[in-house]
Order: sequence, then C-alpha cells, then structure tokens
Amino acid sequence: MPVETITWKDDRIKLVDQTRLPDKFKYIFCNDVKSLWLAIKTMKVRGAPAIGIGGALGVLLASERSKAKDFDSFKKDILMAIRYLSSSRPTARNLFWALERMQKALMENKSKNINRIKKILKKEAFGVIKEDKYTCRRMARYGADLLRRHDNVLTHCNAGGLATADYGTALGVFFEAKKKKKDITVYVDETRPLLQGARLTAWELKNAGIKTVLICDNMAASLMAEGKIDKIFVGADRIARNGDTANKIGTYNLAVLADYHKIPFYVVAPSSTFDLSLKSGKEIPIEERDKKEVLEFRGRRVAPLGIKVCNPAFDVTPNHLITAIITEKGILRRKRGRFLLSQPFAGK
Amino acid sequence: MPVETITWKDDRIKLVDQTRLPDKFKYIFCNDVKSLWLAIKTMKVRGAPAIGIGGALGVLLASERSKAKDFDSFKKDILMAIRYLSSSRPTARNLFWALERMQKALMENKSKNINRIKKILKKEAFGVIKEDKYTCRRMARYGADLLRRHDNVLTHCNAGGLATADYGTALGVFFEAKKKKKDITVYVDETRPLLQGARLTAWELKNAGIKTVLICDNMAASLMAEGKIDKIFVGADRIARNGDTANKIGTYNLAVLADYHKIPFYVVAPSSTFDLSLKSGKEIPIEERDKKEVLEFRGRRVAPLGIKVCNPAFDVTPNHLITAIITEKGILRRKRGRFLLSQPFAGK
Repeated sequence: MPVETITWKDDRIKLVDQTRLPDKFKYIFCNDVKSLWLAIKTMKVRGAPAIGIGGALGVLLASERSKAKDFDSFKKDILMAIRYLSSSRPTARNLFWALERMQKALMENKSKNINRIKKILKKEAFGVIKEDKYTCRRMARYGADLLRRHDNVLTHCNAGGLATADYGTALGVFFEAKKKKKDITVYVDETRPLLQGARLTAWELKNAGIKTVLICDNMAASLMAEGKIDKIFVGADRIARNGDTANKIGTYNLAVLADYHKIPFYVVAPSSTFDLSLKSGKEIPIEERDKKEVLEFRGRRVAPLGIKVCNPAFDVTPNHLITAIITEKGILRRKRGRFLLSQPFAGK
Repeated sequence: MPVETITWKDDRIKLVDQTRLPDKFKYIFCNDVKSLWLAIKTMKVRGAPAIGIGGALGVLLASERSKAKDFDSFKKDILMAIRYLSSSRPTARNLFWALERMQKALMENKSKNINRIKKILKKEAFGVIKEDKYTCRRMARYGADLLRRHDNVLTHCNAGGLATADYGTALGVFFEAKKKKKDITVYVDETRPLLQGARLTAWELKNAGIKTVLICDNMAASLMAEGKIDKIFVGADRIARNGDTANKIGTYNLAVLADYHKIPFYVVAPSSTFDLSLKSGKEIPIEERDKKEVLEFRGRRVAPLGIKVCNPAFDVTPNHLITAIITEKGILRRKRGRFLLSQPFAGK
C-alpha cells in the first residue's frame, strides 16, 4: 500500500515531512498558505505530481480560510494564494497546472455564491488527488509491460509514492511489475545533493520488498559498461512540446550514458507534466537552489569555507535521448525524430 | 607551495591525515608497518603516487626497525613488510611499483652488510620521493601548455599535492597554468562517496588562489551541455598497456560525457602508473570498499537499514575515450587507435 503523502485532513493539509526520512516517518500539518509555501520550498513535500496536489490543496486552504462575503474579495484572496504558491518552486509544471485548474474553476463559477464556489473548489482539489491516483495506476500498467521477468533497472531521484498521491510514476512501474511477479532488481542513484534516492526511493522499494541496490550517482556508468543495467526509468518535472524533459539534476547524465551503452531510457510522467506552451527544453526555467545543499551534508559541512558552488536542481534531457514517454494516456514513442504529442494531448 | 603530504621525519613516517580535511589539517606519525597499512587502507593517505611513496617508506620503516643480523633474516623482515603492504589496496599500480623497486634494491645488494643495505634502502625510498617531485613538475609543464588563457576545466577526485609528494598530477597542470598567469576556472566534482573533490581538491585550489566551483558529480553533464567545460583533466591509478585507465569511480562517466560533448579528456599520470603486464583495463583489479561509505556520510546514516550497496572505488576508462595521457616523459597521444606507449616506457 502506498503511503498517504499529501492529503486534506481536519480542514487542513496533512503531509509527510520528507526531509526527515528515512530516519523518521512523521506527518506535519499546514494550516495556512504560508506554511505550505515553506513546505514546498524546503522540500518537505516534493515531486512534481505531489507539489501539483500541494498547489490544489493550497488554493483550497485559501478558499476555506477566506472570510470574503462577495466574489471580488474572494477572488482577490484566491488569486493572492495562487500567485504566492507559484513563487515557491519554478520548474515542475504540475504546480502551475494545478493552480491554473483551480483558477479556472473559480472563474467559471463566479456567478455562484461564495459557499457554493468553496464547495466547487474543494471538489476540484479532491479531483486532482483522485485523478492522480488513477493516473499513477495507468502509467504503472503501461510501464510494467515493458519489463521482462529478471530485468535490472536503474532509477534516479524519487519518482515514487512520495512524489504523488499514490503509486508514483517511475516507481509505480516497478511496484506493478512486482505485483505481476516480475523479479526485477532496481539500482537506485543516491541523487546528490539532497539524496532523494538514498533516503526516499530506497526506503519505498525496500518497504515494497523489491530487490534494491543503492549506488552513488557516479557509479551508474560503470554498471552500464558491465551490462548490469537493462532499462532506465525516471520521472519528469516539465516536458516541452518537442519532448525535451526537465527532471532532477543528473537525469541528463544518465540519458547520455544510456545512449552510449544502448540502454532504453524511459520517462514516466502524467500529462499534467507537459507544457505545450514551450517549444523546447531551452525555455524551461531551471531552479538554482541554496549552495548550502552542496556544501553541507545533512547539516555537516564538507567543503572549505567560501568556495563557489553550482546547484541547479534540474537538468534538461533532449528528446532524441528519450526512448519513450509513458503517460496515463499511453506510451509516446519517438517516430521519425519526434514524439506524437499533439494528438493525445490536444485540447488539454 | 605544495603541502608536505607524506615524508620521513625523526625515524618514522609523517603524513597528513586526509580524512580530517578540510576541517582540520593534522599530521600523524606511523611508527610501524601496521599503522601505515591502516593509514593506507582507511585512506588517511591516498592518491596513487602518494601511496607509492607510502610503500617505499613502509619498506624503509621495516628496514630501520629490523633487528636482523644476517641477510636471510633481514630479507624475511623486508619481504614480510612488502607482502603485508601489498594487501592494503589493490588497484593503484604505484604502490606495487614502489614495493617492487624496494625489493629489487634489496636483492641487488644482498652481498653487502645489513647496515649498508639499510642505507641503500633509505636512499632508494628518498629517491622515490625526490623523483615524484620532479615528475610532478614535468607533467605540470606539459599539461599547462594545453591550456588557454581563460579555459574552464573540470577535474574529479583529488589528483593534487595531497596525492603526491609535490604539485600533484592533474592539479599540477592547473597550478602551473596559474603560475603562467592563465586565468582558468576549475570545476570540481565532489566525488562521492568519500568527497575527495569537495574536501581535498577544493581546499588545495582555494589555497592556491585558483577560481574554483564545486559541483555534485551528477551536475557535470549539464555544465557540458551549456558549453561551460573546455577540457577535463584527471589522474590515474593504473594504466594498462593499451592505455585503458583505472581511476576514481566516476571518471569513466566523465569520459563518456566528454566524448558525447566533444570535450578533450586528459589523463595525467607518472610512468609508474603504467602496468605493462596488463593487456587491457579488463585485467585491472578494482577495489570494492565498505558499504558504510555509501550508507553513511561522515558518520551520519543516509539510507534505510539493511539496503544493499555497490561501492567500487574505481572504474576503467577505455583508451578510445582518452584524448591523451600526460606523463613526465611527454604527452602520449592516440594515433590510429593506439597510444604510442611501447617506445617511451620500454625497459621500465
């Protein structure tokens, strides 16, 4: 059973504090939009679909807390929350997708009375969670079909239950394969600087009873050279119209290695990750995070004082290095140099 | 001025405890072969040329401590020390090279009296240190000529003064470039699991006043894609006859990335790193180290209990991914698919 990563409970947001894992499994509560913003910013909740849900629940929080009596005041409260939450993290599309969806629900119902609109926003936010669960299961089924009985796969960062409302994206594929009695082994990149692989993915896979081998990020190449990796599955934070994919820093590295070693490289992501307004990955905004994350390791300094640091949280994998993108609507394969994106996602 | 990393002082071995850097700069002393073995094993002293010097000084230590009155007993003491030190770490060629050299000096002088042989062994060990200093400077000069005024270079692990008796191998190139007023910027891979890049290389470069940017190992690819890396320089632990090169885990990863992004990839290593008895890199023994190094981070656990781990300390870069090997005897360039190794290293 997947963990309940982020949900609505007793009129507030309940979420697992992922910065404490795997040492401590602990729920925290967000009573206002500001504490949610901070939870997203500091990555207590992270993973593109999960922060999408965070966005939807954040708007619900603003709606429930609003004391506005007329639509204009209510709208002001909601739009302020949306603007504020938009500023928490720039890269994952799902956050903006969820916020836009909530805003649309608000605007489409402006003629209704406030209490009615509040109910509609609540339903919309719950809908985002419900759909994410369904979406996870669909992607997992499509992806699991690509796995053979004894495949050795590699994954990066955490694209699991902790990144979604249910099964996860890339990890969902593995959970589903396990359910289908496929005896896979998953190699997990530890994923510096914040170690989502070592802390979160290893924890999820171990709990699910899947064979797991933890490696440092720089070991993947030598495993590939030894023929130990059959397939690679990763999640995504934003996918441009041409299929270029932003995901956790180090993903592009793996994609180049996969290309060199002729290993299939799969991206698993719900359609809410696509940003059809962007022509290519060059337009995806990449978050640069605090240098402390590189200079320190869980609070212990590891480098000399005053050293300069790069800390991009994501990189962009160009479409030609991606074998296929697995979505809830089916598997998008590259054909004649392009993904067939326009049709299945039209009108979204 | 380079740090005095490992030397002979007051009838014992004096070395920097590199596990304490950059927090503490502290010398420790090895009074017997066992404590030296442990210092090598636990990487208080590390870096292929430096553990070569360790091997030579270890034999000197055994010689000085020996109470043998006849050659057979003396020989027994020395060979026991050599065998014991051989078992400390398996990959770096320089250790075996130095031990063999000391053994040869012993055997070539067996007709002499013990006190005389002890003096010869001391001279031989000091010779290893002296030659390493000279070797570092020569490599540095050859390598620095390859750098342009404002080059951005990338290095992995620590191939600096802390890995040699002087200037370092790859870092020596940067120190020499700085001396020649070339305004280079060095990107440094932190080099998990033991962080020699973050702890040692960043410290050395900062002390030398060279522009330094620390990155996590998984960020190198995205810097290359952005055109921020002009050249890559790394050290080596063992080089087979065909030029295949074992170096710190993650080096092969960089070599594949360099190939993909068309960035020159240079190995800087003294001729003592070559193992002409090995036809290819496949024959190089790769050390597997304690899983704790991956599971913990300077004593703090980062992954769930009971998880399986891979921890190879080195990987092998095939010769075709190496642009050139810079040695004290000149630069070996690949021509028609092979390095011109046989001639300059013949008779070694």
